[in-house]
Amino acid sequence: MSLFESLFGKKSSTAHVARDRLKLVLAHERASNALPYMEQMKEEIMEVIKKYTQVKDIHISSRNNQNIDVLEMEIILK
Amino acid sequence: MSLFESLFGKKSSTAHVARDRLKLVLAHERASNALPYMEQMKEEIMEVIKKYTQVKDIHISSRNNQNIDVLEMEIILK
Repeated sequence: MSLFESLFGKKSSTAHVARDRLKLVLAHERASNALPYMEQMKEEIMEVIKKYTQVKDIHISSRNNQNIDVLEMEIILK
Repeated sequence: MSLFESLFGKKSSTAHVARDRLKLVLAHERASNALPYMEQMKEEIMEVIKKYTQVKDIHISSRNNQNIDVLEMEIILK
């Protein structure tokens, strides 16, 4: 699976309608404990995106796998 | 290939040494032309990351596939 497919999902066999959207993935691989500033940094990155885009809808998910934390944001643009 | 592997590469068979690093992927799927504010938004996101982290090394790459632009930043933390 390519990175593109990982990001936006496999295209279905029916016609794929392109739409303006952003996907932000922020992954943090840590050797030690979680960094205390991480949450605040994520908030500020979100603020930058909101400032520059007209957000129609937003989906946020986070998950972790061993020592990797991943934050995913999908932003549907107006 | 999982998203984790897409982000950080497959682990080698030898011991993988965890280190503090961030990976930021910003993908933009566009129905129309590239948005004029995109470059400036990327710059500002970078500024936020630099503000919160002590960057030891940084690798930036960008690529595109049809109507998807992808910016990848790998940040090795001190």
